[in-house]
Amino acid sequence: MKPRIAIVGLGLIGGSLARRLANAGCEVIAWNHNDRPYATAEADGIICKPTLAALAEANPDVLVLCNPLKAMPQILGTLKPLINPETTTLTDVGSVKGMVRDQVKAVGLDGCYVGAHPMAGNELSGWEASDPQLYDGALWAITVDENTEYRRFLTVADMIVNRCGNRLIVLDDATHDRCAALISHMPHVVATAMINELVANPNRNIAAALAAGSWRDMTRVALTDPNRTRAMVEEDAANVETLLRDMANRLTLMANVLHDMADANVRPTEGDVKQMDRFFAQGQPFRDYKAAVKQPDYTERCEKIKLAIPEDDWRRTLLESARRGEHIVRFEGEHDVIVEVRSAV
Amino acid sequence: MKPRIAIVGLGLIGGSLARRLANAGCEVIAWNHNDRPYATAEADGIICKPTLAALAEANPDVLVLCNPLKAMPQILGTLKPLINPETTTLTDVGSVKGMVRDQVKAVGLDGCYVGAHPMAGNELSGWEASDPQLYDGALWAITVDENTEYRRFLTVADMIVNRCGNRLIVLDDATHDRCAALISHMPHVVATAMINELVANPNRNIAAALAAGSWRDMTRVALTDPNRTRAMVEEDAANVETLLRDMANRLTLMANVLHDMADANVRPTEGDVKQMDRFFAQGQPFRDYKAAVKQPDYTERCEKIKLAIPEDDWRRTLLESARRGEHIVRFEGEHDVIVEVRSAV
Repeated sequence: MKPRIAIVGLGLIGGSLARRLANAGCEVIAWNHNDRPYATAEADGIICKPTLAALAEANPDVLVLCNPLKAMPQILGTLKPLINPETTTLTDVGSVKGMVRDQVKAVGLDGCYVGAHPMAGNELSGWEASDPQLYDGALWAITVDENTEYRRFLTVADMIVNRCGNRLIVLDDATHDRCAALISHMPHVVATAMINELVANPNRNIAAALAAGSWRDMTRVALTDPNRTRAMVEEDAANVETLLRDMANRLTLMANVLHDMADANVRPTEGDVKQMDRFFAQGQPFRDYKAAVKQPDYTERCEKIKLAIPEDDWRRTLLESARRGEHIVRFEGEHDVIVEVRSAV
Repeated sequence: MKPRIAIVGLGLIGGSLARRLANAGCEVIAWNHNDRPYATAEADGIICKPTLAALAEANPDVLVLCNPLKAMPQILGTLKPLINPETTTLTDVGSVKGMVRDQVKAVGLDGCYVGAHPMAGNELSGWEASDPQLYDGALWAITVDENTEYRRFLTVADMIVNRCGNRLIVLDDATHDRCAALISHMPHVVATAMINELVANPNRNIAAALAAGSWRDMTRVALTDPNRTRAMVEEDAANVETLLRDMANRLTLMANVLHDMADANVRPTEGDVKQMDRFFAQGQPFRDYKAAVKQPDYTERCEKIKLAIPEDDWRRTLLESARRGEHIVRFEGEHDVIVEVRSAV
């Protein structure tokens, strides 16, 4: 039986998800903070509701929060008395997971909650930009904690794998947010520091004139709205702090080695040369990984293996699978998954 | 009268330059370390010479060194007894300028030398990839020192502006190499440190799976040959060292502010909030600059003004013009230039 899925927020991510699920034959109901998307959404087979109450009264199997993070506390507060946590599983698509779970806990809905974060998006926003193909080939992170019910996980996983046709990995919130800090939040700070470095330089106009592809790519994210970047960084402050200190140490270590090399009177020591060797060699597994994944038909050629999920230890089993670089691509019954074995870094 | 221009090295940069100059009606002669490009180069109107001696004997007005930097000392040594420094002006297209001038001085050819660095290139290499359109709209940096003769500068500038149809700015070697460190060499080290950070992380496979556009763009240059990056960084060690320490300080400062924000027991001080405000505001002039230059017809709409070049103070006048963000687009006689007034950072 196809599930009934409720979408809160018909922006780029929520609108695209609603349209993809409707295309897949799901019964999709939706609410948006204004009814501008409703006419075209209804034409796409999405049943639009005038209020959050009307959405919750429809008793959906899954309710997906696709609203902006800043609206989350208010929407959760409104939903709390309206939804039936026995029959509705609550999830979201937010890009930070620890904070959302805290907000869900604060209103007492954590018993029916499973976190989710689809790796999909582009530089656009709003329903007008929504496109079901935005989710083509997407990987989702599902986040769970020690209280997450296995049946709730299966409900959200069914939506992702069987309805959206996507892949997923299972994480705890802390691992998700640490990884997001590494691949997105910290790099945004570094890019911002680089444009600050240029602006502070008396030769900034010359440098800007000479800048080519490497500078353009490395500073692109610093050109986006700095207030959004700042909010993102502050929401994940502890993780970003750790990574910035690590990066500062790596750069200082290289500065020390280069100091000896620049100073003609100080021959680089054997230790210096080894540090330099190590610095340029350490990332090689990532270079190899990138070379592997860009091969044509890479995904098709990845080995698929069956993984049994022990009911008493499912969280750890699935987190370790994710750590090995495996992606869940199919369920076989309720206790076996087929995972795609990706190249490891 | 169209000049006779000699090109040493028919790779991507030299080959494209030779073809552009031949298209512009210049007499172009060339030598390459092997004769593989000669048949197609001759078909493009380039007169190919079997030896460096034959190239020098043709007594060119300009000789452009487009060979790899590592071949520079040997080629300069070979050329020294062959060229007539009275009638031939020597220049190059290398991406570091201080080191090349030192090598030119070491063989005693600095009296006829003017440095040059065209902002042109792509990820390809070799004659097969050469394309005269590679130089479309290119900006060149010309580098001079206190001994550079004005007539030598005019000779190289004529090739760039009147023959190639390109723009130029005039710098000293130190300014050029400091700017190159800022917009290219330092960012390469930062990108390498970021992939090292990922590889060192126990969640590296999860992070790599979650990585999206910001990570891809910011680490792209770390995927290129690490030996080439290392050589580039070591050649510009002192400048890169300074910038890495600056970057480490900026990242540490942000880590300190985030530490207070992450610690619920420590309210961020007013000073912390101000540091954060400043960090995200400081780069705004660069964001505004980028928004300006990406306007359609930006170049056409830039104001063009006439700048007189005093013969006794031409180096400082032109360096200051570059610092203001002006590009030389035309000469009017020998002592007036038309500069394009670009948006300043």
